[in-house]
Amino acid sequence: MAGNAPTDRPLKPELTGRRPAPTIRDVARVAEVSIGTVSKALNEHGRLRTETRQKILRVARELGYRPNDMAQSLHRAKSMTVGILSTDSFGRFTYPIFQALEERLADQGIAVFMCNATDDPVRERQHVEQLLGKRVDGIVVTARRSDRRPPVDVGISGLPVIYVFSQTDDPDAFCLLPDDEGGARLATEHLIRLGRRRIAHISGPERFGAVRLRRLGYRKALEAAGLVAADDYFISTRWSERAGYEAALHLLELPLPRPDAIFCGNDQLARGVLDALRERGVAVPADIAIVGFDNWDVMVEATRPRLTSVDMNLRALGHEAGDKLLAMIAGQHLVGTHHLPATLVVRESCGA
Amino acid sequence: MAGNAPTDRPLKPELTGRRPAPTIRDVARVAEVSIGTVSKALNEHGRLRTETRQKILRVARELGYRPNDMAQSLHRAKSMTVGILSTDSFGRFTYPIFQALEERLADQGIAVFMCNATDDPVRERQHVEQLLGKRVDGIVVTARRSDRRPPVDVGISGLPVIYVFSQTDDPDAFCLLPDDEGGARLATEHLIRLGRRRIAHISGPERFGAVRLRRLGYRKALEAAGLVAADDYFISTRWSERAGYEAALHLLELPLPRPDAIFCGNDQLARGVLDALRERGVAVPADIAIVGFDNWDVMVEATRPRLTSVDMNLRALGHEAGDKLLAMIAGQHLVGTHHLPATLVVRESCGA
Repeated sequence: MAGNAPTDRPLKPELTGRRPAPTIRDVARVAEVSIGTVSKALNEHGRLRTETRQKILRVARELGYRPNDMAQSLHRAKSMTVGILSTDSFGRFTYPIFQALEERLADQGIAVFMCNATDDPVRERQHVEQLLGKRVDGIVVTARRSDRRPPVDVGISGLPVIYVFSQTDDPDAFCLLPDDEGGARLATEHLIRLGRRRIAHISGPERFGAVRLRRLGYRKALEAAGLVAADDYFISTRWSERAGYEAALHLLELPLPRPDAIFCGNDQLARGVLDALRERGVAVPADIAIVGFDNWDVMVEATRPRLTSVDMNLRALGHEAGDKLLAMIAGQHLVGTHHLPATLVVRESCGA
Repeated sequence: MAGNAPTDRPLKPELTGRRPAPTIRDVARVAEVSIGTVSKALNEHGRLRTETRQKILRVARELGYRPNDMAQSLHRAKSMTVGILSTDSFGRFTYPIFQALEERLADQGIAVFMCNATDDPVRERQHVEQLLGKRVDGIVVTARRSDRRPPVDVGISGLPVIYVFSQTDDPDAFCLLPDDEGGARLATEHLIRLGRRRIAHISGPERFGAVRLRRLGYRKALEAAGLVAADDYFISTRWSERAGYEAALHLLELPLPRPDAIFCGNDQLARGVLDALRERGVAVPADIAIVGFDNWDVMVEATRPRLTSVDMNLRALGHEAGDKLLAMIAGQHLVGTHHLPATLVVRESCGA
């Protein structure tokens, strides 16, 4: 460490215009101690008289000195940053995850780079290169889930990568997902407990893993109760209110006993179904009970009656991702796909 | 610059476990040149034989060498990072702004730290301190707008700060906002051009600056056309579908001529209005034309008829924020509040 080196830089802030941030050197000069002594005082290591330490801390505060994270990171080989790579242009699902994750990491002094790749592999590659250049300590990948995505290539860096609300084929990857199957099972079991026996299921396009898993949960719940769903009671359509509206009308016109409940693959479908039933004079929940999926406040509170819906607990997913990423950065080795439990939020549409 | 200094670190990647990233030193050793020569080749300065330059670039590529942004930033006094500070826990408005902003900055090699403060001043302060510690080159502040917020204190750093979709009282601040007044005026003028004369306005709580500005635009458009709106034709309520539904029923029961158009302060209100009118057998747009505000795809495409709505052009706002922040980082001095034009997206609900 160098000694008490005076500098020519002014100490008084020039209130107009920018000036360089004060350095450890400035603190040392004003406190009339060596840089090594300042370092000891700020990092709370080494032996130092209490008065000296307090004087240094006071001077540092008065000058507005902040330890340079970047210089520290070069020293520690940790940048205290992580990158989030998102391909969800919509943001509705990944934003709550991101918020909870950021909350967890900020508590540990880790800052989060947010990168949007929106399904453009070239842009994603640029972002990964940039994050590697910034020496991030880890990468979180989130996606608007249609299906498995190719793994993110971090080269030989061995950098921890977590896939949240997204999945990849790499068997060594660590993926955190909501429990689509379990959530659907919860919803269907709830309807069965309320005495419903002819439960239909309207969901999104079958290319979505979530659609297949939710259907599986629905089927398992029916089978466990000794019920069999007519094939025509399952409709795969687009993820929109209009599609839900049309699917409901279709169900009402089938040459089958009318369903006494409809479990919908998302809240928008459920809302379309509710609109169709109201127009046809079908009472909800008396004639047909409705349950949605996502528990999206904008939808569930606006429907009449208000919508019972499965909540994927996206914030819990974000917190878990933060905890697991911290563990991986600390050296823990995690692999495999893990599902976080969903919950059912009961309102009036199911007749509970 | 040091000479051709060999190191003990292995060059072959160890495929199991993490290893430190290759350094400029490793490149120099393998290419059998000095570190200074590597620096020349990578930074494209100084005179160098073409073969030497090509050899160095090849070695750097093979080793997976990446210039250390952090070390470079210490050198250049630019960190090539900016921070976004958001207090919008919802994300619907700020997410498109953020995406467009990030797109612009990423094109310039600048990475974006995303910080959520969600209206907690202590947390916001911690985030600002952290960003200053990371030596960001600028800060963007976004908010869920209710009203002006206190300025972000960057101390004596003189760091560029932009307020986007948010406003502060500091007269030296630079704020970018959508044009609420102009957007409302567009919507109202459009209805007048279509022959509507009794135009009501249902909007959110008056503590929102946006509510006051939209009402102003609505009034100015009416006045310019020689029309006067009855005071009872303006309703300030909550931002929700249910509130829109109730407000519409209230309007229908007034001892006044029934309005022939309703301009709504957001799309959720408009949707509630449409539901109420349908239930009362009022034809839209034949009897009453409806225009919303926000042009939120989830709403405007789901209503029947589809909703004409004002678009605040949030992505354009994000791009503009990126451009202006880059200008400020380059030394330009920008102050004042600037509004970006809104546009009207015409669908069926207005009867055009």
